[in-house]
Amino acid sequence: MVELPIAPVGRIIKNAGAERISNDAREELAKALEKMGEEIAASAVKLAKHAGRKTVKAEDVELAVKTMK
Amino acid sequence: MVELPIAPVGRIIKNAGAERISNDAREELAKALEKMGEEIAASAVKLAKHAGRKTVKAEDVELAVKTMK
Repeated sequence: MVELPIAPVGRIIKNAGAERISNDAREELAKALEKMGEEIAASAVKLAKHAGRKTVKAEDVELAVKTMK
Repeated sequence: MVELPIAPVGRIIKNAGAERISNDAREELAKALEKMGEEIAASAVKLAKHAGRKTVKAEDVELAVKTMK
C-alpha cells in the first residue's frame, strides 16, 4: 500500500489547471489511483496465469484496464 | 504528461502477486493510471471552480472519483 509518490500526483492536478491544491487533495488522488492500480494489477496477474504465463505483460494490463470499465 | 514514475507502479503489480513483470506492463499501467488521474483531476478542478474556490480540495477529488465510476 501507498506506493505512489505524492509529488507527481500533485503535478497531474496542477497540469489539469488547478490554481492551488491542498495536500489532502494530492493524497486523495494518490490513494484513488493506487486503489485502481491494485485492482487492475490483480486482474492482470489473473489474466497472465490464465494465459499460462508467469510474466505479467502489457497485454494483460491492457485487457485488465478494458475489463475494469 | 508522464508524471508517474515506473518503479512504484511496478511494485503495485508485484504486490498483486506477479512472479515476473515485463517493462512494457509497468509502462502500460503507469500510462493507464496517469490517464485516469488526468480525467479525475480535470473533473476536480471544475468542481472546485463550481464551489467558488481556487484551491482544489480532497472533497473535489473524492466527488470526481465517484462521478467517474
